[in-house]
Amino acid sequence: MSSSRFDSPVYAHRLRAAAAATADAGLAGLVISPGYDLRYLIGSRAQTFERLTALVLPISGEPTIVVPQLELASLKDSAVVDLGLSVRGWIDGDDPYRLVAAALGGAPLATAVADSMPALHLLPLAEELGVLPVLATDVLRGLRMIKDAAEIAVLREAGAAIDRVHARVPEFLAPGRTEAEVAADIAEAIVDEGHSEVAFVIVGSGPHGADPHHECSERKLRAGDIVVVDIGGPCEPGYNSDSTRTYSIGVPSPEVAQTYSVLERAQRAAVEAVRPGVTAEQVDAAARGVLAEAGLGEYFVHRTGHGIGLSVHEEPYIVAGNNLPLAAGMAFSVEPGIYFPGQWGARIEDIVIVTADGATTVNHRPHELTVVPVT
Amino acid sequence: MSSSRFDSPVYAHRLRAAAAATADAGLAGLVISPGYDLRYLIGSRAQTFERLTALVLPISGEPTIVVPQLELASLKDSAVVDLGLSVRGWIDGDDPYRLVAAALGGAPLATAVADSMPALHLLPLAEELGVLPVLATDVLRGLRMIKDAAEIAVLREAGAAIDRVHARVPEFLAPGRTEAEVAADIAEAIVDEGHSEVAFVIVGSGPHGADPHHECSERKLRAGDIVVVDIGGPCEPGYNSDSTRTYSIGVPSPEVAQTYSVLERAQRAAVEAVRPGVTAEQVDAAARGVLAEAGLGEYFVHRTGHGIGLSVHEEPYIVAGNNLPLAAGMAFSVEPGIYFPGQWGARIEDIVIVTADGATTVNHRPHELTVVPVT
Repeated sequence: MSSSRFDSPVYAHRLRAAAAATADAGLAGLVISPGYDLRYLIGSRAQTFERLTALVLPISGEPTIVVPQLELASLKDSAVVDLGLSVRGWIDGDDPYRLVAAALGGAPLATAVADSMPALHLLPLAEELGVLPVLATDVLRGLRMIKDAAEIAVLREAGAAIDRVHARVPEFLAPGRTEAEVAADIAEAIVDEGHSEVAFVIVGSGPHGADPHHECSERKLRAGDIVVVDIGGPCEPGYNSDSTRTYSIGVPSPEVAQTYSVLERAQRAAVEAVRPGVTAEQVDAAARGVLAEAGLGEYFVHRTGHGIGLSVHEEPYIVAGNNLPLAAGMAFSVEPGIYFPGQWGARIEDIVIVTADGATTVNHRPHELTVVPVT
Repeated sequence: MSSSRFDSPVYAHRLRAAAAATADAGLAGLVISPGYDLRYLIGSRAQTFERLTALVLPISGEPTIVVPQLELASLKDSAVVDLGLSVRGWIDGDDPYRLVAAALGGAPLATAVADSMPALHLLPLAEELGVLPVLATDVLRGLRMIKDAAEIAVLREAGAAIDRVHARVPEFLAPGRTEAEVAADIAEAIVDEGHSEVAFVIVGSGPHGADPHHECSERKLRAGDIVVVDIGGPCEPGYNSDSTRTYSIGVPSPEVAQTYSVLERAQRAAVEAVRPGVTAEQVDAAARGVLAEAGLGEYFVHRTGHGIGLSVHEEPYIVAGNNLPLAAGMAFSVEPGIYFPGQWGARIEDIVIVTADGATTVNHRPHELTVVPVT
């Protein structure tokens, strides 16, 4: 998939589906400023902030792009031209919020705005519309959560790419090297193996592995360290990989090995729980249950996973309290971890895609603690 | 200035001033999510999105940081610890908007939120507070626009650094090289000369110079091209440079030279108009007047300038309709340009700082069309 975006029929379909979902929700339309929703709907990577750019999608009538005349070029990589969307340019001095209201067509209903719309635009828009908007995610999640065949193909490519990086990680790990040095090598490998850029690199060695949000540091690896490596990035046209494996510098102690084996079982149990109709929180509970039964429940301090696609973190969230039933085409991480403050931590993460009767993973590296020989 | 932030008394002073300005505005408090305002107030570069992080600054009572427990580390580079700010961590399942409301202390007044706060957080916060917030910029612009001595020192450093880059630009410009190749060399020079990163590089050659928002392309430079080079980046702790000079590959035609000389006069007239009490639009009019008088008014298609600091574009905007009186300590660009579609364009840009009785510039490269000899 070398193109920077999908073909325009993909976007035309998404716009129609979004308008239908907006009508179903009893709303007047969507107002989508730059961000992942805009990228999803028309392939635009515009990142403007100060002057309003927005796709206005009324429930009836034509979609319109409201865009500063000077920033028309920010739409050149999008499907705007191919789709023949109406473009309403504005210049300094015009009131873009009034243009949005006009493009919405004046239905006396609430409008949904992109989650990423900044207060700078949302507050004057709310004033112009006279009704407090709602979040477009409530309308778009049903579309964005269910990946189509083209999206799944890219997620698989991204998964294979990050697997190739993990296959190379042992060669980067050696006593005396810093986490930052290892992270730099991994970042280079992420791009070498086919990602368009690096989204994140976590190298958490020894006690740093016990902090799930540690990134990397000047700490030097030592023999005996357990090292959490959580890495990912987007493949064109922008779908992300995200995979964690845990490494051991030298042979781990029997206690560590035994504890780690419980984590393997927890991760497997969660993946095995995935199928249409099961709720997100049931998948979380499957992982949590295995750890709790082994007395490790208190060391699993985060949710089991998150959806993935154009954004590294998106719906569905695999977390207690989320009773969303899973459906075929959903893609998310399954990544339980255990964290022993001041000592060590471990995490195993694969991206899974819900199938008609279960789940398939896009990552295929072994789950075991990969032992890096100490020479 | 090698530190990544100022000393904590600077931030303590800013917090007190912000609370006072908020009270003066008749508001209950400020709620500042990650972005430039947060960086200005406490030196934090946090960039979280999905889970709410916010500085809550009530008009009376203690400032509080509401932050996801897992993302506490995102505050480590800030002045939160030095200032002894109250930190209210939250975990998945908590309601962070309720925590914000509690930290505000319950005054039945509107709250101001950061311009950058996304709808994802603003809409639930508005619901929790029961009153539509207003933009914090209305409260903070008075503070952020007036740079203190430490900020001015960094803006001067950044100006000197970008001047050194412009001094090297002629060596990068040669017929046959692409704009992108030139831009890559400039980007490297921006970092070499002391910026912490590259914010933007515009290389607009020949007809591309006629598009003020052109970035760079695969177009090859040719003898006879006029080339607009508009570049900048931040110097620690984050204040930006922004300077444009225009180059000529070979000796320009007499007509181009004559037209360009009007632009020089326009830019000089605008800088000379700057002093406390003059309005932003008067500075714009000074540049515009010179160009209009020479029959070039229609080719100057953008505002004359923008404020600069932690953000490359911030208040005050030097634009028709802005009757803000200038005051000592304001820093902004003065950058008139002329654009002849399909032919060529030119722009001259310096950053100026308003003094007690006039203006001083941080950029000192010559304003003339710099002629690059064609060998």
